[in-house]
Amino acid sequence: MNHLYEKTVKTTEIFKGKVIDLEVQEVELPNGKMSSREIVKHPGAVAVLPITKEGKIVLVRQYRKALGKTIVEIPAGKLEKEENPLDSAARELEEETGYKTDKLDFLLSFYTSPGFADELIYLYMTDKLEKGTTNMDEDEFLDLLEVSLEEAEQMVKDQTIHDAKTAYAILYLRMKAGFGS
Amino acid sequence: MNHLYEKTVKTTEIFKGKVIDLEVQEVELPNGKMSSREIVKHPGAVAVLPITKEGKIVLVRQYRKALGKTIVEIPAGKLEKEENPLDSAARELEEETGYKTDKLDFLLSFYTSPGFADELIYLYMTDKLEKGTTNMDEDEFLDLLEVSLEEAEQMVKDQTIHDAKTAYAILYLRMKAGFGS
Repeated sequence: MNHLYEKTVKTTEIFKGKVIDLEVQEVELPNGKMSSREIVKHPGAVAVLPITKEGKIVLVRQYRKALGKTIVEIPAGKLEKEENPLDSAARELEEETGYKTDKLDFLLSFYTSPGFADELIYLYMTDKLEKGTTNMDEDEFLDLLEVSLEEAEQMVKDQTIHDAKTAYAILYLRMKAGFGS
Repeated sequence: MNHLYEKTVKTTEIFKGKVIDLEVQEVELPNGKMSSREIVKHPGAVAVLPITKEGKIVLVRQYRKALGKTIVEIPAGKLEKEENPLDSAARELEEETGYKTDKLDFLLSFYTSPGFADELIYLYMTDKLEKGTTNMDEDEFLDLLEVSLEEAEQMVKDQTIHDAKTAYAILYLRMKAGFGS
């Protein structure tokens, strides 16, 4: 795809944070003209769609400062350094919900905002949950919810659920459940 | 949800760019302790799932500097100032694919990365396309593809399609098409 390639001519580091870094790259476009790209570097993330024995979906309500409000999401968190996504998903699930599992099925991974960020989310599902111990990060506060698929779909409609990974997970469950239910 | 609320004590502007801004907010957590949040401000975006008369999905292949590679996505772009999402979606569709439409069905909106960014994507679908005129942004280069649902699903599997909005759109189409096809 050489006719689409943008060559980096110069990289300027703008910010190094605890979650993200920001850099600006001066690039040479395919037509030889120059432009700039603002790029957020992120360590990547994991998310888990957890289903209880009773068929309920385990969700967390969290205040998201970037949005200035609470939204409801499937359990998720960022990858720690040198942690593999599967271990990270099991860890985040237990930390946030108190449920342990030894069975995580990989669904897919996707970039969340390829226009400006390299964040890649690995999405897993489990329907084998055992009681473990919640152990939130010290700057993390959340409510736990267990809802039916129909309740979750209503939350997508009224935007209580309003993020890409959770919307995908709920649609995936609807697909698996079929149209009749 | 007051028990989850984080109060901003101080906001530091780090960067103002052409696509995103970055700020760091010092926040008071629900337990009274202090923490910081790194927040990317984004104008929001639109994406369109376009289906041709022949039932093909119109996709674009683009080099994404943030990822260092090309991926295939549904047509999308960021909201221009004071532009409403519906007009923006029609504009981006025609600019990127050369197809015009007067029928855009709103599917849903979602935040892409609520942990660190306020980007909200409005997702539309159309199955009424007419030939218009491509008119790319001057720093935008892309290939057009028209593929079947099965081909698109294969591209999700092999990660040629590897972003949240497009994965959601393909799954949505699969749901609409049912399991038999």
